Amino acid sequence: MKESTEKNKNLQDIFELLRDIYENLLPFDRLLGVKVVSLSLTDIKVRIDMREELIGNFVRRILHGGVISSVLDLTGGLIASVEMLKNMEHHPLDELGKRLMKLGTIDLRVDYLRGGEGEYFIASGAVLRKGKRVAVVRTELCNDQNVLIAAGTGTYLVG
Amino acid sequence: MKESTEKNKNLQDIFELLRDIYENLLPFDRLLGVKVVSLSLTDIKVRIDMREELIGNFVRRILHGGVISSVLDLTGGLIASVEMLKNMEHHPLDELGKRLMKLGTIDLRVDYLRGGEGEYFIASGAVLRKGKRVAVVRTELCNDQNVLIAAGTGTYLVG
Amino acid sequence: MKESTEKNKNLQDIFELLRDIYENLLPFDRLLGVKVVSLSLTDIKVRIDMREELIGNFVRRILHGGVISSVLDLTGGLIASVEMLKNMEHHPLDELGKRLMKLGTIDLRVDYLRGGEGEYFIASGAVLRKGKRVAVVRTELCNDQNVLIAAGTGTYLVG
Amino acid sequence: MKESTEKNKNLQDIFELLRDIYENLLPFDRLLGVKVVSLSLTDIKVRIDMREELIGNFVRRILHGGVISSVLDLTGGLIASVEMLKNMEHHPLDELGKRLMKLGTIDLRVDYLRGGEGEYFIASGAVLRKGKRVAVVRTELCNDQNVLIAAGTGTYLVG
Repeated sequence: MKESTEKNKNLQDIFELLRDIYENLLPFDRLLGVKVVSLSLTDIKVRIDMREELIGNFVRRILHGGVISSVLDLTGGLIASVEMLKNMEHHPLDELGKRLMKLGTIDLRVDYLRGGEGEYFIASGAVLRKGKRVAVVRTELCNDQNVLIAAGTGTYLVG
Repeated sequence: MKESTEKNKNLQDIFELLRDIYENLLPFDRLLGVKVVSLSLTDIKVRIDMREELIGNFVRRILHGGVISSVLDLTGGLIASVEMLKNMEHHPLDELGKRLMKLGTIDLRVDYLRGGEGEYFIASGAVLRKGKRVAVVRTELCNDQNVLIAAGTGTYLVG
Repeated sequence: MKESTEKNKNLQDIFELLRDIYENLLPFDRLLGVKVVSLSLTDIKVRIDMREELIGNFVRRILHGGVISSVLDLTGGLIASVEMLKNMEHHPLDELGKRLMKLGTIDLRVDYLRGGEGEYFIASGAVLRKGKRVAVVRTELCNDQNVLIAAGTGTYLVG
Repeated sequence: MKESTEKNKNLQDIFELLRDIYENLLPFDRLLGVKVVSLSLTDIKVRIDMREELIGNFVRRILHGGVISSVLDLTGGLIASVEMLKNMEHHPLDELGKRLMKLGTIDLRVDYLRGGEGEYFIASGAVLRKGKRVAVVRTELCNDQNVLIAAGTGTYLVG
């Protein structure tokens, strides 16, 4: 009983740490306006809101491709982080923080499927491969009408 | 003679248009601080300077992966644009501008090779495929020590 | 009424043509032993059986990565072909055949997720983007235990 | 002196082992007709000859995309193997063989640039990243006229 409460407490601490890193501690995530709107073992979602500064085509007024690849990259990284940490729940938080700072993207493919029109966008994804050293995550970005704007596949170094 | 001067004049106009689009007219390029430091038929280079807001890892203080993918994407797009426009020199500038706004990235692969440490970064590239409809461009990002930080391959819709 | 029978008849002719191309007319598909086990507007599946010649690791006796990329590439091409042809049902078959021979893969990403162990393998996929000029298809390869072996994303020139 | 002869002897043994694996021991490489035409620390080239069975388009009679991705994948793997082994020269050969059988492709991108026309094709490449765990290799396939047919980027698990 105590055991499991302890475990859940740690898990919540880890999620708090991750949210703080992705929303506040990474300057470029802050510049993009990243919000982690869902964060659990089973459901992870990242949101960004359209802003003038994020536009990449002044005629069509759509998201810049770089904003799209940035959000898919960091969403895949967040999903890979949860995958990596969920078996390390009892390790001290500062150790987990160090591990997180070592996690990195090895490569990323992004397919730009439709113009990024909308007032906000939601990124989500799924783990295709979870290894000791490498994780592969497929991600998707949808707009406020739930139209698929872009799809990504990222390979992450996790150990 | 007049012919060829006329031609060069148009080419310079096109380069001015491209520089203005990439440095001033695309809000996200401005947010990144994109500078087109070389722009000719044979040599195209884009520079960004390190800034606090572009950091993606507060421990290692390196460029965010999203900044890297953004710069490689837009550098490939600029190279594909020059490729597309160099056979359209005699078309009116406003028509060329419309064509440029239709050029889009279909997909992009980025390989993150080393941490993005440096005071500034230079992106360059080469056309692998130039078709009527699709162009493929390989790009590279080096830091101020000319160390290769990342490599990209982008497929662009050009017609 | 006649109209719709006519239409369905043509659709079946197209499917026959596609099956004949992928199973018999492409020498390398024959070398791989490609079988089109489902072929309709909504369900397309390709099967290959494990054979000594397809092994890429004589210790682990698993499929060669090149067999996996080949099957994902051709499955994505088949799916893109059906997408392209389903709006051309009333065109003469020989014209459709010519169009099919012009369809080509622009680029492909393959993620090798697990060793290709099994007696047979099934490839399937879904269209992410259907344009006049370009289609993007995500594909997956599972083994006889329905374990995901590899995932792919291909960009195809369709017009 | 003896030291360095010893070293070179081992290096030659390693190259013999690699050549034997890629030309004879991997059934699918044999099916493709892979020949390792250059194999040194500085120059690695793989050749395949056009054959009826390798055709992917019976109208244009060009290489199947799957043959191209297969050759780029295995060429990148050979280059990553040499990279991995050149610092392990003094390890016993059977240990090196075991290491080689563990090396695997994590992901691969292939860009199909031109139709694969020619009597033979040469694949070569360069290491972009050499890490303890992951290597990234860029590869190219040229035909007998030295025309670039396809380009690849592969990520390999090396430790």
